[in-house]
Amino acid sequence: MFKAVHYTEVPSEEVKDGASGVRVRWLISCKDGAENFAMRYFEIDPGGQTPRHSHDWEHESFILSGEGIVFCEGKKQKVSPGYVIFIPPRAEHYFKNTGKKKMIFLCLIPYKK
Amino acid sequence: MFKAVHYTEVPSEEVKDGASGVRVRWLISCKDGAENFAMRYFEIDPGGQTPRHSHDWEHESFILSGEGIVFCEGKKQKVSPGYVIFIPPRAEHYFKNTGKKKMIFLCLIPYKK
Repeated sequence: MFKAVHYTEVPSEEVKDGASGVRVRWLISCKDGAENFAMRYFEIDPGGQTPRHSHDWEHESFILSGEGIVFCEGKKQKVSPGYVIFIPPRAEHYFKNTGKKKMIFLCLIPYKK
Repeated sequence: MFKAVHYTEVPSEEVKDGASGVRVRWLISCKDGAENFAMRYFEIDPGGQTPRHSHDWEHESFILSGEGIVFCEGKKQKVSPGYVIFIPPRAEHYFKNTGKKKMIFLCLIPYKK
């Protein structure tokens, strides 16, 4: 069904599993009828980061606010608003806020078929 | 392969097929190894719009800048930065810039399997 809401209307949850200072809003998911991929909105506190890990699926991300680094496949890339990131399946990666305000980004993942 | 670029590094193309005043950048696509879905960055000039149409695939969008309306399934929703939009497969829809500056949004689509 058609959905059009402001992101602030979507609840924010703390991310566990090795993340520090990370919250997520599942903006669009299978609950909305999205069968192919999900859109999530992440906020990382200054100094926080997502876990260094890898998995079978890719990430497609867009940095909305703040600054930090994205580590992937042994490389560290400084990112800021407007950066686009593709993390391939099985690549070791993390996102880290190295700035003084929140680092905010969209991160989309596929649903397994 | 890992990709991390600023969106301005990705070429912008005019959208034809019934669109007016619309440009697109394919930020992440199959050319980057993205097998499941593509991330596009759209800019609509004041007064411009995407065509009123429908197709077999969904859209997942996030409004970055400007203001306008999203029409879907007979409903018109005013949108502004931070709005999240899910347009289901086969729903008739369009995006229209009703403001005085560019309306900019991300719009993601699945790849067919």
